[in-house]
Amino acid sequence: MAKVGVVLSGSGYLDGSEIHEAVLTLLYLDKQGAEIVCMAPDAEQVRVVNHNTGKAASEKRNVLVEAGRIARGKIRDVKNVSAKELDALIFPGGFGAALNLCTFAADGSSCSVNKDVEQLITAMHASRKPIGFICIAPAVGARVLGKQSPKLTIGNDAGTAAALGKMGAVHKECRVDDIVTDEKNKIVSTPAYMLGPSIAHVAKGIEKAVAKVIELI
Amino acid sequence: MAKVGVVLSGSGYLDGSEIHEAVLTLLYLDKQGAEIVCMAPDAEQVRVVNHNTGKAASEKRNVLVEAGRIARGKIRDVKNVSAKELDALIFPGGFGAALNLCTFAADGSSCSVNKDVEQLITAMHASRKPIGFICIAPAVGARVLGKQSPKLTIGNDAGTAAALGKMGAVHKECRVDDIVTDEKNKIVSTPAYMLGPSIAHVAKGIEKAVAKVIELI
Repeated sequence: MAKVGVVLSGSGYLDGSEIHEAVLTLLYLDKQGAEIVCMAPDAEQVRVVNHNTGKAASEKRNVLVEAGRIARGKIRDVKNVSAKELDALIFPGGFGAALNLCTFAADGSSCSVNKDVEQLITAMHASRKPIGFICIAPAVGARVLGKQSPKLTIGNDAGTAAALGKMGAVHKECRVDDIVTDEKNKIVSTPAYMLGPSIAHVAKGIEKAVAKVIELI
Repeated sequence: MAKVGVVLSGSGYLDGSEIHEAVLTLLYLDKQGAEIVCMAPDAEQVRVVNHNTGKAASEKRNVLVEAGRIARGKIRDVKNVSAKELDALIFPGGFGAALNLCTFAADGSSCSVNKDVEQLITAMHASRKPIGFICIAPAVGARVLGKQSPKLTIGNDAGTAAALGKMGAVHKECRVDDIVTDEKNKIVSTPAYMLGPSIAHVAKGIEKAVAKVIELI
């Protein structure tokens, strides 16, 4: 049975993990018979957004605690998860990936990545274990693995694609129901809600991405 | 195109909507080509639970605002939604259904239901429009429609089944990958995480429930 880590960044597409993408990742991993290890950084969210109004809220929330809502309580601090215990790793999207896992939302191509997340990605890649990046999460992968010139997709947004290129990634355009696979680096990506328009479309790409990640183990 | 309401109760299985059940409902409705109308009561949550520790938190959160995380911002106050504009209605589960949509968590079979939710269910039933109840949400249906002796399932939990019976419902045992259909009342239910054990199992029952609700329109 494959053991696959899922790195969450909160719960809600404006300040955390995109909930549909995260749940679909869990669904297709479970359908594949994988053992799932959900994890997130134990850190304060960069922001909290009211998802009814779309406006900033004055609250403070913790990335790990909110991610626990998606994981139904089965959530670990990413700093306590070793690449040795995993066969693969997947990052759902949501703006939380660009806020709480790295500083891409604020700093673009000069962003930095949460050190525990960076260490885990580096160790997975060094061990030739596959990594999946969904939606905006390829920004995290581009920052950490840019020197390996990873092939990645965030769909077709020119500005974001250019920023990935500045970090060393090779951006490939991709439809929402498809994936981009970098066989050499064992990296799989799909645009999901970078393109949308709705959950059934996003689900097709994520189902393919999960299957490819499992296949590459 | 069928227009189907989805009644949410927050975001997180311990104090709001069960996120997997809610997202799977949206997935299978979208796959069926339905237009989805997410809604929730604009009210303070009865409680907020830390989903990492499982313990009560001292925060206050709003049911509608948190449900907006699952609905990606497309969320309406249930009191502004009329049965006339809908072809069907579905209630995902999560403890929020028993906390924020009715008082079943506190009061059991003597519970009361949020008046806007009650009015909507009553009007849908009077118009012969199908209603789906997932997981613990059949408690809401039993309370509102008990006089119609609705056939419902919450899986096989004897205590909860007995409470539904006291409200007038006829409980039917059901597996997680199956549904109970009350053709006369046009009510469909599935146990989901009342049984579990994991998302792929829950998905099978919800996929069938959504398909049956659409078929009954």
